[in-house]
Amino acid sequence: MFELAGQLRKDGGGPVHDLSLGNPSLEPPTAWRKAVVEVLEGEPPGMHRYMTNAGFPEVRAFLAQRESARYGLELNEGHVLMTVGAAGAVNVFFRAILDPGDTVMVPAPYFTEYDHYCTNVGAQLVPVRSTDAFEPDVDAMMAALTERTRAILINSPNNPTGAIYSEAVLRRLADALRAVNETRERPVVVLEDSPYRDLTYDGSDVPSMMRLYEHTALLTSHSKDLGLAGERIGYIALSPKMAGVETLARGLGFCNRVLGFVNAPALMQRVLPKVLGTPEGRVDVDVYARRCRKMAAGLRELGFEVAEPRAGFFLFPQLPESMRGQEGADVKLTDALLAKRTIVVPGTAFGVPGHLRLSMATPDAAVDGALAAFREVCS
Amino acid sequence: MFELAGQLRKDGGGPVHDLSLGNPSLEPPTAWRKAVVEVLEGEPPGMHRYMTNAGFPEVRAFLAQRESARYGLELNEGHVLMTVGAAGAVNVFFRAILDPGDTVMVPAPYFTEYDHYCTNVGAQLVPVRSTDAFEPDVDAMMAALTERTRAILINSPNNPTGAIYSEAVLRRLADALRAVNETRERPVVVLEDSPYRDLTYDGSDVPSMMRLYEHTALLTSHSKDLGLAGERIGYIALSPKMAGVETLARGLGFCNRVLGFVNAPALMQRVLPKVLGTPEGRVDVDVYARRCRKMAAGLRELGFEVAEPRAGFFLFPQLPESMRGQEGADVKLTDALLAKRTIVVPGTAFGVPGHLRLSMATPDAAVDGALAAFREVCS
Repeated sequence: MFELAGQLRKDGGGPVHDLSLGNPSLEPPTAWRKAVVEVLEGEPPGMHRYMTNAGFPEVRAFLAQRESARYGLELNEGHVLMTVGAAGAVNVFFRAILDPGDTVMVPAPYFTEYDHYCTNVGAQLVPVRSTDAFEPDVDAMMAALTERTRAILINSPNNPTGAIYSEAVLRRLADALRAVNETRERPVVVLEDSPYRDLTYDGSDVPSMMRLYEHTALLTSHSKDLGLAGERIGYIALSPKMAGVETLARGLGFCNRVLGFVNAPALMQRVLPKVLGTPEGRVDVDVYARRCRKMAAGLRELGFEVAEPRAGFFLFPQLPESMRGQEGADVKLTDALLAKRTIVVPGTAFGVPGHLRLSMATPDAAVDGALAAFREVCS
Repeated sequence: MFELAGQLRKDGGGPVHDLSLGNPSLEPPTAWRKAVVEVLEGEPPGMHRYMTNAGFPEVRAFLAQRESARYGLELNEGHVLMTVGAAGAVNVFFRAILDPGDTVMVPAPYFTEYDHYCTNVGAQLVPVRSTDAFEPDVDAMMAALTERTRAILINSPNNPTGAIYSEAVLRRLADALRAVNETRERPVVVLEDSPYRDLTYDGSDVPSMMRLYEHTALLTSHSKDLGLAGERIGYIALSPKMAGVETLARGLGFCNRVLGFVNAPALMQRVLPKVLGTPEGRVDVDVYARRCRKMAAGLRELGFEVAEPRAGFFLFPQLPESMRGQEGADVKLTDALLAKRTIVVPGTAFGVPGHLRLSMATPDAAVDGALAAFREVCS
């Protein structure tokens, strides 16, 4: 996609409207820049060396305190492991808990990199189609669960759909898993991959399995809320109630080391306590909100069905009724938009034909240009 | 080791002399700190987002030019991939070229993390004992080579021995591999893991397979020469003469992505062109030189055999003649030193009994304290 947009840009045919990328387009907050300089200028010796593989203890203690307050739990620094982004977090976690042949269940559609992360450790991802509202289908998931299901991976607010999973559905999932665990030696672990949780438009909390299910780990990064995708800073927070939590924490540190991450980037770790929770310690999410609402409204006028955007920067519109039922309609529409210099991802790429995935992590001009292209192609 | 030293420090028994760690103790150069602030203050938008998985093209072009000049080759940005340290580089490379069951040959003793990096992809490390001067034993290596040997991994200046491999030996290795390649479909790849190459005490170049053998990749980091081990910045530079170099470069980028590294930390990438090659763009290697020479001289007085230190911060002394031949003598000596609050690693941990590995990446006081402990224990 990166390269497709690059080629188009070079052909001299005018601007390209690229809605294909999950690359946060907002700049890191000014508070972050200031904090980096402050940290560098005031630091004692030894701050850029290796530290323990889990990360600087004082940073982990700070994050443990924040997660404790957020979820009503009692985490300490031993429950937090700093990682090379959320992608590093998922890979470290998979390596720590999965044996070859184990499976990880995921509500579909899903972030397709998960397939690779499973393959890395010889495990297999088992997608289970979500409900029409793109919430986890708990009954279908329980029906698909086997002895080899070691973990369930959820991602809310979701990429690609933008959906926020409701507390009611998560509670049902927790209850169902508790019943399953009574029949098993090792409980099913829930991995909550939540890099968008601090990008709700109204500032509300996103319902979390951390509150509802004891065997939960939160995996997140500051790629989106601080606009630091390229800096690779994330972490894992373990529910202290999780079975075998201390052994797991040691295993995660070991995996962080032997997979070659070794530790999360030192300077980026140390900046977090100076920025998180401060009034200016976040990208301006209103920008994403404005773009998503504008695009959603424009598409609805053309007959698309679009859930009301509530967080993050993804939209997952369903094609207008006139196009539905046509084999490959989303792929054809993608091609027609490409001819108008607009790049989108067909739902087929996520196993959900009849939809498009649109990213509003793109300049305002691209949103306007893309909307014009949609109008030309769809009306 | 980290934890052992920590426990000792807490017992109130006085200072601990820790010679066990390969954690560079010198601070990053002032030029680096300045460069970080400069880069941050003058930057255009978009510098902390994801970039192509291989890294910023202008940084890769800069490094390609440097490696070209150093080795008399013609690298371009397509031959350079930015990585999460050298550990990330080795893991990415192994994933790109190794199938399960393949083997990687390494002169022993060797950095023991390599075992894990092989295990990560279902491959196996095959150590071949080095000569008495700790140079690769080319005849022994060729005798141990099989159809499954996909790569040879060399590390010079070496951890743990501190040895710099001579050009004559590397030339013999190159010639031997060329002869082997005539009998094989795919040539044997040489991975040169060289994070210590810019830490020679006299500033001389370290002989490199990059000059001598076409199927070579250089893997390095700035953990040691810039004192940035915790920041996780390294890279892979491919010889442009390598078979299938373009396909390999694409494969490395893909592996960087799917293993969860995604890309090397963005800010650390962008600082490199401002620092490398400048007069102050390196840690003060004289400090390591002074400590290594002092320790080597002190140990020789006690009957140890120690090669003249030439680079980096590791010494690998052989035990005095009086202790040799005693089963487990290096482990016993390690324990005796520990009782004097001095932490070293026995050669047995590297498969070479009768030696110790000492790291001079430790304060001067620890060097002095350790020498005093050696004198008490060994005289």
